[in-house]
Amino acid sequence: MTPALALINGKADPCISPLDRAAMYGDGVFRTLKMLSGKPLAWDIHYRKLASDCAALFLPCPTEAEFINDIQCLFAAHGDGVIKLVISRGVGQRGYAQPDPLIPTRMAIHSPLPIYPADYAVNGVKVRVCDLRLSAQPLLAGIKHLNRLENVLARLEWDDPDIAEGLLLDAGGSVVEGTMSNLFAYAGGELFTPDLSCCGVAGVQRERIMFLAETLGIKLVVGSLKVESLLAAQELFLCNSVIDIWPIRQLQEKIWAPGHLTHQLREMLRKLDD
Amino acid sequence: MTPALALINGKADPCISPLDRAAMYGDGVFRTLKMLSGKPLAWDIHYRKLASDCAALFLPCPTEAEFINDIQCLFAAHGDGVIKLVISRGVGQRGYAQPDPLIPTRMAIHSPLPIYPADYAVNGVKVRVCDLRLSAQPLLAGIKHLNRLENVLARLEWDDPDIAEGLLLDAGGSVVEGTMSNLFAYAGGELFTPDLSCCGVAGVQRERIMFLAETLGIKLVVGSLKVESLLAAQELFLCNSVIDIWPIRQLQEKIWAPGHLTHQLREMLRKLDD
Repeated sequence: MTPALALINGKADPCISPLDRAAMYGDGVFRTLKMLSGKPLAWDIHYRKLASDCAALFLPCPTEAEFINDIQCLFAAHGDGVIKLVISRGVGQRGYAQPDPLIPTRMAIHSPLPIYPADYAVNGVKVRVCDLRLSAQPLLAGIKHLNRLENVLARLEWDDPDIAEGLLLDAGGSVVEGTMSNLFAYAGGELFTPDLSCCGVAGVQRERIMFLAETLGIKLVVGSLKVESLLAAQELFLCNSVIDIWPIRQLQEKIWAPGHLTHQLREMLRKLDD
Repeated sequence: MTPALALINGKADPCISPLDRAAMYGDGVFRTLKMLSGKPLAWDIHYRKLASDCAALFLPCPTEAEFINDIQCLFAAHGDGVIKLVISRGVGQRGYAQPDPLIPTRMAIHSPLPIYPADYAVNGVKVRVCDLRLSAQPLLAGIKHLNRLENVLARLEWDDPDIAEGLLLDAGGSVVEGTMSNLFAYAGGELFTPDLSCCGVAGVQRERIMFLAETLGIKLVVGSLKVESLLAAQELFLCNSVIDIWPIRQLQEKIWAPGHLTHQLREMLRKLDD
């Protein structure tokens, strides 16, 4: 695997300070996106979400031009791949109080495009329900921040390579998301996706799919969703900016054949990205 | 201020990889301790807690000898100060799955001893109640992990230099801790400290004070504590490994004179550290 190439505040740099607040407190936000033929996919939405996530944490967001410059440098050096963009509250001294002056750290990291089994996108994946229950923090809900220990602990729950993703529930037993993906369920002509006002990450691909459902005239319901409702759905699928859409093929004893709407949304996303 | 000196896996190094899981996910634990006359205070408890926090996150803990070596190197170079020890799940590729092989990153960071107003330890500090409510996550409660965005956001709530600390409540309105300290209340001959089974950090100084209360024959109560109970207490104090003990002088309209037990515990801690 090619070593990742990282730009730190626009400079090729293999390292950051151990006093960077990203490392000290997970004090920052990030986004992961695909770059194909030199084009960062869904860039407008990614940047808008970076900016709004920064605002929620009272972090100054770098300009769009700074990120675009980083992305172009990484493409020139490494070609297509996955780009991770990170903004932290910069290097600080001891203590939680904001560094003064506050100089955010901007990171852009290139990784090769991951190679998933082709079958994942076509026939779908097997998923499990994680034991860990997400905590409720409305001030952080929806934000793609760097405090991701819950996702790490949930991902440690299984090592069966046949299981591609774990579903995360909240303390009340409602399904919130996957460890690295958002979730949709199609049932009775309506498309359901979990409400993220208390926990979870509001992904870019989730937003695009919500928009596409609207253009198809499908009623979208954002609300509470239990595992039993998932098992009763006609189609289930996962999404994120790297995998696009994976149908869910198996959850517990239930097995689904590839669904029509899931396929249709996947094709629509592909056209958007062309 | 002298620049901090950091050892990364035992080597003087100004930097870590941006792919270190500390920076990517806050995936690690830490402890902060004082080094006086070359001696890391309360080392046995700090190491025991590092080891148990690592175990809770399924992280291999470096040996005591490795940390002691780091601490001695930092003392030789910089003298007395505050030492922050960090263990992360090491450098990883994309994704939450554990790096394979897993090579934890060990960091030891030296900072100068902070200079607080002498009055803080003698007459006490003014504190406020933060608006942010801590989320409940039993799998992370008590652990001094690197996911500290709640503390950061709470600390951003005020910039009045007269306020030395903010108290954090849980969603049910029970007091849990300060943003950087643990809390005790003395009332009716009993010493109360909040239960940390759903949120909060179980500090080393808190543990030592609980032990000292026992040796004094004072009944210790670990449980739920509301702001009204704090306001009705005879003595309140904050503790951590750097400040030792600060009496609380003011909370809301209530003002306290320095209390006898608070002073006594502070002197007992000082003797333990001699």
